[in-house]
Amino acid sequence: MWKAPELDFKQMIKNKMEGNHFMHHVGFQIHTIEPGLIEGDLELKPCHLQQMGFVHGGVTATVADIVAGFAAFTLVKHGQGVVTVDLKVSYLNPGKSDKLFAKGYVIKAGQKLFFCESELWTMNNLEKILIAKSSATMAVVNAEDIKK
Amino acid sequence: MWKAPELDFKQMIKNKMEGNHFMHHVGFQIHTIEPGLIEGDLELKPCHLQQMGFVHGGVTATVADIVAGFAAFTLVKHGQGVVTVDLKVSYLNPGKSDKLFAKGYVIKAGQKLFFCESELWTMNNLEKILIAKSSATMAVVNAEDIKK
Amino acid sequence: MWKAPELDFKQMIKNKMEGNHFMHHVGFQIHTIEPGLIEGDLELKPCHLQQMGFVHGGVTATVADIVAGFAAFTLVKHGQGVVTVDLKVSYLNPGKSDKLFAKGYVIKAGQKLFFCESELWTMNNLEKILIAKSSATMAVVNAEDIKK
Amino acid sequence: MWKAPELDFKQMIKNKMEGNHFMHHVGFQIHTIEPGLIEGDLELKPCHLQQMGFVHGGVTATVADIVAGFAAFTLVKHGQGVVTVDLKVSYLNPGKSDKLFAKGYVIKAGQKLFFCESELWTMNNLEKILIAKSSATMAVVNAEDIKK
Repeated sequence: MWKAPELDFKQMIKNKMEGNHFMHHVGFQIHTIEPGLIEGDLELKPCHLQQMGFVHGGVTATVADIVAGFAAFTLVKHGQGVVTVDLKVSYLNPGKSDKLFAKGYVIKAGQKLFFCESELWTMNNLEKILIAKSSATMAVVNAEDIKK
Repeated sequence: MWKAPELDFKQMIKNKMEGNHFMHHVGFQIHTIEPGLIEGDLELKPCHLQQMGFVHGGVTATVADIVAGFAAFTLVKHGQGVVTVDLKVSYLNPGKSDKLFAKGYVIKAGQKLFFCESELWTMNNLEKILIAKSSATMAVVNAEDIKK
Repeated sequence: MWKAPELDFKQMIKNKMEGNHFMHHVGFQIHTIEPGLIEGDLELKPCHLQQMGFVHGGVTATVADIVAGFAAFTLVKHGQGVVTVDLKVSYLNPGKSDKLFAKGYVIKAGQKLFFCESELWTMNNLEKILIAKSSATMAVVNAEDIKK
Repeated sequence: MWKAPELDFKQMIKNKMEGNHFMHHVGFQIHTIEPGLIEGDLELKPCHLQQMGFVHGGVTATVADIVAGFAAFTLVKHGQGVVTVDLKVSYLNPGKSDKLFAKGYVIKAGQKLFFCESELWTMNNLEKILIAKSSATMAVVNAEDIKK
């Protein structure tokens, strides 16, 4: 029997990302989508900085939230989504570079809740500087909850 | 003896804010500056939303960080600044409105560390909806550390 | 028609507390039970301290968790329970006193998740010293989940 | 010239632990002390449980705080100590076992602040169950601050 091909996993997530307007406003680009893992980067421009010339804590938190949330999203069932319940960001080092790299991953996938982490770093003279680490709780939302 | 007038307290903080590029990129406006307290608002536009049409968690975290950080900044000594050590945001309700209001305040002002909180809400049909609450630790940085 | 008297609200919560062994091991006493609010205190003894003579961070976190969790528990439906999803404690001041006071309260009661806060303080020379503030997410668990 | 032998590194930390009364009250045992790393375990008894029979969130937070704090302590200068600034614990799975294992480690060692993490797990049928993950900020305190 003929069966319509399933929508490609990565394409489905890319489609979802298209509607993530603030991610585009910030300029974050995702380049790796694997089950439970998201990686991407952000070209740092003056608009991303605070008054001391470092990456703004809001940029860091935004990127940490995006990679953690989409990492969870790669593991939910078709039709389900995720929303952030809480996000804690630890700011380990000031971010001073022209590019920010980020990785988000799932450490526990539950029926209702996902626990995720993010790592953000810059490359300075071939040295990787971890500028932030975050821990997030994500709640699974069902299709009918999303429509409401 | 003649003494130059001290730079007005609020004007000094406004000057500092001018260099906070990401705050302007997001569009957050501060309208209240008191010792230990900052209030402001953000006109919500499509660029602030995620794919379900709610305020993006990164916008929420950014605003929470700004009002907490500047609330701490109102209490440090001349020449000192503050940087965010950690920020935890609890997402209580989805943000769906045309304006976001925020308040940041200091709950403990120390010599080296400040503990701050932020509250973010929307007004829906005259009802105040608390969409997020955050707790932040801020570290005091001295003029000589900032130059480095 | 005869109707058995409903089990008294506060008595039901007290019964629940009886099974909270670690609370008794620590020695925390609850004296106020209201919908969405729990208050209590702990007589500080040498066993509660760390090596500098201050209240141990684990005691603080334990008390913060208890008052937040039971505050949520006052608002769930009969047969439901709550479990802690995450707890963030900010240690504002060292605790050095002979008694610790605590208050836990709900800031958002949802169908599946509760957001709570706790405040812990000591009284030193009639002055209230806030030693810790915490934010917690609690998940509602149903009777059938608890049995498992 | 005769020089008194330096107090052995691990012995110094063990001496410090002797004064950590709440750690002993809970019953946590440390068995690994390396620079930036602490490991230990806790034999779970009824006194460590809450009313559903799981490990109490306060026990989890206490152990998370101890291993993170002592991990930081292994890296500070002689005479310095550390105090917890904030601790966030994510409760990934209910703890139901007869032994709890814990590891604390430093992810950033600064002059004034340390960022640490802890992992707590149980062994159930040869399977490692991560029951909690925590992130903590620790502040370095100097000898003269400790005396105060």
